Amino acid sequence: MIALFVKSPRFLDTTLRDGEQTPGVSLKPDDKLNIATLLSDIGVSVIEVGSAVASDGERESLRLISDAGLAAEICTFVRGVQLDIDYAADYGAESVHLVIPVSDLHIEKKLRKDREYVTQMAWDSVEYAKERGLIVELSGEDASRADQAYLYDLYAGGVERGADRICFCDTVGVMTPERASEIIPPLAALAPLSIHCHNDLGLGLATTLSAMKSGASCAHATVNGLGERAGNTPLEELVMSLEVLYGVKTGIRTDELYHLSTLVSRLTRVPLPTNKAIVGEMAFTHESGIHAHGILRDAATYEPIMPEMVGRRRRILLGKHSGSASVEAALSEMGYKTETRQLQEIVSRVKQLGDEGKRVTDSDLHAIAEAVLDISCTPVIRMKQFTTVSGNSVMPTASVTLTVNGEDITQASTGAGPVDAVIMALRKAVQDVGDITLEEYHVDAIYGGTDALVDVTVKLMKDGELITSRGARTDIIMASVEAMISGMNRLLREKDENRGKNTH
Amino acid sequence: MIALFVKSPRFLDTTLRDGEQTPGVSLKPDDKLNIATLLSDIGVSVIEVGSAVASDGERESLRLISDAGLAAEICTFVRGVQLDIDYAADYGAESVHLVIPVSDLHIEKKLRKDREYVTQMAWDSVEYAKERGLIVELSGEDASRADQAYLYDLYAGGVERGADRICFCDTVGVMTPERASEIIPPLAALAPLSIHCHNDLGLGLATTLSAMKSGASCAHATVNGLGERAGNTPLEELVMSLEVLYGVKTGIRTDELYHLSTLVSRLTRVPLPTNKAIVGEMAFTHESGIHAHGILRDAATYEPIMPEMVGRRRRILLGKHSGSASVEAALSEMGYKTETRQLQEIVSRVKQLGDEGKRVTDSDLHAIAEAVLDISCTPVIRMKQFTTVSGNSVMPTASVTLTVNGEDITQASTGAGPVDAVIMALRKAVQDVGDITLEEYHVDAIYGGTDALVDVTVKLMKDGELITSRGARTDIIMASVEAMISGMNRLLREKDENRGKNTH
Repeated sequence: MIALFVKSPRFLDTTLRDGEQTPGVSLKPDDKLNIATLLSDIGVSVIEVGSAVASDGERESLRLISDAGLAAEICTFVRGVQLDIDYAADYGAESVHLVIPVSDLHIEKKLRKDREYVTQMAWDSVEYAKERGLIVELSGEDASRADQAYLYDLYAGGVERGADRICFCDTVGVMTPERASEIIPPLAALAPLSIHCHNDLGLGLATTLSAMKSGASCAHATVNGLGERAGNTPLEELVMSLEVLYGVKTGIRTDELYHLSTLVSRLTRVPLPTNKAIVGEMAFTHESGIHAHGILRDAATYEPIMPEMVGRRRRILLGKHSGSASVEAALSEMGYKTETRQLQEIVSRVKQLGDEGKRVTDSDLHAIAEAVLDISCTPVIRMKQFTTVSGNSVMPTASVTLTVNGEDITQASTGAGPVDAVIMALRKAVQDVGDITLEEYHVDAIYGGTDALVDVTVKLMKDGELITSRGARTDIIMASVEAMISGMNRLLREKDENRGKNTH
Repeated sequence: MIALFVKSPRFLDTTLRDGEQTPGVSLKPDDKLNIATLLSDIGVSVIEVGSAVASDGERESLRLISDAGLAAEICTFVRGVQLDIDYAADYGAESVHLVIPVSDLHIEKKLRKDREYVTQMAWDSVEYAKERGLIVELSGEDASRADQAYLYDLYAGGVERGADRICFCDTVGVMTPERASEIIPPLAALAPLSIHCHNDLGLGLATTLSAMKSGASCAHATVNGLGERAGNTPLEELVMSLEVLYGVKTGIRTDELYHLSTLVSRLTRVPLPTNKAIVGEMAFTHESGIHAHGILRDAATYEPIMPEMVGRRRRILLGKHSGSASVEAALSEMGYKTETRQLQEIVSRVKQLGDEGKRVTDSDLHAIAEAVLDISCTPVIRMKQFTTVSGNSVMPTASVTLTVNGEDITQASTGAGPVDAVIMALRKAVQDVGDITLEEYHVDAIYGGTDALVDVTVKLMKDGELITSRGARTDIIMASVEAMISGMNRLLREKDENRGKNTH
């Protein structure tokens, strides 16, 4: 029964429909256009844009994207209701994803109708949508829990009445790959078939692949696996599995996948899971001693694909598992040369920090290296005092006094909040010392209480060099200032070293 | 070639080894003991505790957990090195996960040795570990990219020399379910076989299941799918797939899985992905109008399993996709009765908030409902002023003046930071009005810059009623105060209504 993958599989991306149905996610029309444009540019065949009946904003989005002249086919979600189909046609969709509940559970409990009623609704809707000039993908909702003989007849009658494609929805993510390989082939013989899987039990991708091997010519997917509950099949995992594991040419520009993921994450405000396959922060990051050791010798030892293939770069982080090979590599990148005993001491201090449950940032490694190598660098900047005032009727205001090269400098600033004010004052105070820009300011999510530890990370740039520095305090303002000062000292100290005694 | 699942599959949890190798993750010995205890209590057969050779902290953890008298077998990671094996035995491990690189890539590039050397190392290590009284699981690292004939011989010789079990590692997550079903059966005939998969291409779970169907009697997994890069097979997804989709009795107490996930997330500081299967925040949360409609009629329409099965509860959120059924249900839960036209107006305002990209909290819905129903509730508490001062040499201090039932109350407090100080002052100021406790204070991760929008959520409790309230400002202090005041007003207002005119 197992067929081969179709030669040129198609992808219908439903990020702008299933993805946007993620509770708490809401995209504005312009955001949707940005995402649709990138999806089309990287080679996605069909883009499903929301449900026009849902709200004015959804209709505006559909109009905007339909008018944008994208290469991809613009599709929209409709129920078996004339109003939905009219909206789809009136607002410019080329095709409709016509979703009809087909399991008895959905028919009886949700719709409170019977099978005959639903069949008629499906067929009438196909005919009406064809009359309105739309490409029709007739979709069985909860198809994996439906009576398969009933489903077959419903699809067959729909195709007779003009449906261009059919779609099999595993709406609650309960289909197994094994079952897909049994039930998809006869259905796929009726018309081009799309497979639409959810990930409730973690098998959305595997089941999608199995259905594609069993005759499905198109797969539905969402960027980052967004979607209701546990989401849908992730587009980036699907594309990369097909390319890397099954040798299928997808026609997708894989080197834009990471860019796409970060765009969608930023606009939906759903953070990328740190260990998400392909696109998570850690997917190409290595810490453990053994592994980083292998990676330094040959990246393929601990990487299934080159990160560049999906538009990313490799990172090596230090921590309690770091072996001397990776610590030495990091030190050498910073310009430190060490003897064996010094290196051992540095590695042991790095592990100790890790054992205390801390992450080891660039700044930490610098501090350790300088202590061990006995490089006495007077910090260029010392914090003498800072004070902030804020309130509901008080303009957030901060003053800062720094000792820079022995001289006291005081600056004050207002800001959007007390953190903003103090950082502005700080930057004013150091502006004569060097041109340091704050490239990124990030605070980890705070859990627990108002006295929880706040973890602030800043990325600072000076003369093209980018460094990361961290502060951790129960006071978000203190943590921010600490991260800034330690990072600025790093950047300024290095300048000195480059000029003078930089032979360590 | 396809066999059946073994009757009582075993699980070897590697959260405390693979999971802890997640870059940036570092668990203290006590944290590890907490996790190991829960793992053992819910029925996991074997717990792999770090690598004793890595650091003092790792050895301390191993000793602590070995001495805890847990029902589970305590295992530890060792290389084919006597020192590693000695540490394992000396610090109390019952068994070792003896990991030997077996692919030519690993043998030649990482170790810079040849196959014969590695075979000898493996066999010698098995013999030495048996001499030291350990149960030995002989594990092939990167087995999925190894020469399978070489691997077979290495395992066979290891078993002859006393290895109790063998383990097949898909170290970089490139094995497909199809390939597992081909290569596992002959190996599984040699000795009890464990399958260890990584999730680099999203197929860790599917490949693990396929190997288990092909004769593997034990699966390695980590809680929340933690691990290097894209992580390992997630324990909770594996257990629930086996139970729900394949009808396998796992012997795991599934109703503790969510508890386990949140414990690991909190201790590792790796947040649970919002749409992670089984344990993500959204896994049993519903927003969309259509779906919430179905859920209200019969939860099974849009849920594959009852949330209680994994120790969770269902949530319904409002947003731009919310239909009138879910809005009405939420209003009714809050004690509001609406007529059809009022309901329509409320639904339309909820959608409007959603179209603006906002999440709709309980407080928002209250405000909308009261505006539409024209219930003029004077807020019990009004903020008159608040002021905070902080700095590096200034004790974080805040004052708050509230108007409570027409009377001005001023309170001041110090705190761990300015946010803590102002919240303490606030709580002092309202303590005579009602016994309100702050159950949870959460700040979403802040991206972008020091003037980015900060999203604060508080959970407040009064007389057993728990409500959620939100504040969003560029100033974290303002956002925190806003969330507190609006939530407190909700709790206090409801008290009034219960006493008096509560018939809406």
